[in-house]
Amino acid sequence: MTACTHKVQYYETDKMGIVHHSNYIRWFEEARIDWLEQIGISFSEWESHGYASPVVNISCSYVLPMRFGDIGFITVTATKVTAAKLELSYIVENQEHQICCLGTSSHCFTASKGIPISFKREKPEYWNKLKTMEQPKEQD
Amino acid sequence: MTACTHKVQYYETDKMGIVHHSNYIRWFEEARIDWLEQIGISFSEWESHGYASPVVNISCSYVLPMRFGDIGFITVTATKVTAAKLELSYIVENQEHQICCLGTSSHCFTASKGIPISFKREKPEYWNKLKTMEQPKEQD
Amino acid sequence: MTACTHKVQYYETDKMGIVHHSNYIRWFEEARIDWLEQIGISFSEWESHGYASPVVNISCSYVLPMRFGDIGFITVTATKVTAAKLELSYIVENQEHQICCLGTSSHCFTASKGIPISFKREKPEYWNKLKTMEQPKEQD
Amino acid sequence: MTACTHKVQYYETDKMGIVHHSNYIRWFEEARIDWLEQIGISFSEWESHGYASPVVNISCSYVLPMRFGDIGFITVTATKVTAAKLELSYIVENQEHQICCLGTSSHCFTASKGIPISFKREKPEYWNKLKTMEQPKEQD
Repeated sequence: MTACTHKVQYYETDKMGIVHHSNYIRWFEEARIDWLEQIGISFSEWESHGYASPVVNISCSYVLPMRFGDIGFITVTATKVTAAKLELSYIVENQEHQICCLGTSSHCFTASKGIPISFKREKPEYWNKLKTMEQPKEQD
Repeated sequence: MTACTHKVQYYETDKMGIVHHSNYIRWFEEARIDWLEQIGISFSEWESHGYASPVVNISCSYVLPMRFGDIGFITVTATKVTAAKLELSYIVENQEHQICCLGTSSHCFTASKGIPISFKREKPEYWNKLKTMEQPKEQD
Repeated sequence: MTACTHKVQYYETDKMGIVHHSNYIRWFEEARIDWLEQIGISFSEWESHGYASPVVNISCSYVLPMRFGDIGFITVTATKVTAAKLELSYIVENQEHQICCLGTSSHCFTASKGIPISFKREKPEYWNKLKTMEQPKEQD
Repeated sequence: MTACTHKVQYYETDKMGIVHHSNYIRWFEEARIDWLEQIGISFSEWESHGYASPVVNISCSYVLPMRFGDIGFITVTATKVTAAKLELSYIVENQEHQICCLGTSSHCFTASKGIPISFKREKPEYWNKLKTMEQPKEQD
């Protein structure tokens, strides 16, 4: 798996001169879609069949501010894959391999009209791809 | 008609410490929808009937930078209303009545699947509301 | 204390037809600054003295999607105020008083150049205003 | 010169299912900074010397909507380079070489505190790089 690369744009900075904290949440999405593509799941195709995976929870810890021109490398890990839920974690590092941001997202699976489904039952070929990527978090 | 009010948010600033220039384009939209509501056109209802008014052209002149906490007052004028096209102009003033930004947008009208239509023929009750607001630009 | 009001803008929606989840993080900031003003702290003035309160952590639970034209009411509560840290929680309700989103943020205090400080010691007049607002979370 | 590449992100779409029109203005900036780097001007370094090139005017014509997952190729041309002003034009094409968007921006040059300067006189080594790129628009 390759980390998703995101160059910090001028329009992503705020008056503190750093990346506005809301943008990392957008980068998580960017990395998530890239990660899905890398394991063979096209999000566009997924949606075209009426499926979605809405965000249920987000968390983000800000470790080191990033600045205009910095390059972020976003690594995605599937920490939990159940029939009805997907949990991912994210690490954002800069070009000097310093951790800048850590995050998590959890998602449910829905069919058309937003009805929650067992993804495992409904789309086993997609679900299995997710399941093989699962790397449970170590116990603290 | 009342000017649309928009308080500058922190997340709208950039590292120069001023509102990022792309945000004024968003404020134009905000003011446009507010202006339509004031003349009795609900954009949501409009869209629910399959109609849309995509942006065809945008222009913006930046006169005075706005900063965090400033309040923008956005005035909208319909400069041209034809059967198939709508042209609007925008003035953004700050809390001290200084002009900060001037802009224009032009729009076509479409029915479902994005097919351009004569709005005048298809939705005369909406179109007439727009037409009564028309204030052609003075000749330079 | 008055809830902060935010009308959902068209540019805040995504192709699912709902508010993109990253925008709620921006609304938290909007509500936070509004809340600070209500208790007598101007964020602009605060920054002009070289102080900042960078976001250290963010979390957000998405309960009910919001749509274009909906109105969000964002309530802020200070759940923890220590010498060096501020924790806030957020509730976003829509115009029908339904909870749409729940969130938290934690902040440290810094002086110029981003050096963490004891806010209690350095700016007791500001800190006391925060402290009087503290409403610790009930034990679960 | 290489066109700047920008993959359409989910968070850049709106409820019409297309890229929100304000985002192209951001892509212009992204392409502009990339173009400056390609001709040997680092925008970060430029700013670190107290110089800026604020946007004075923007225009954008929307030809074909772009969608999630599309790839934009943004070509930048310097259409006018004078001592005190820079004019650029932009073409955004999709992965099928269709023109999606055409735009222009004009910029002045400022030194610290936003004072307009003759860039030609003050920074001839940067200015000459811009001047060699000038390709005046053909007469219509």
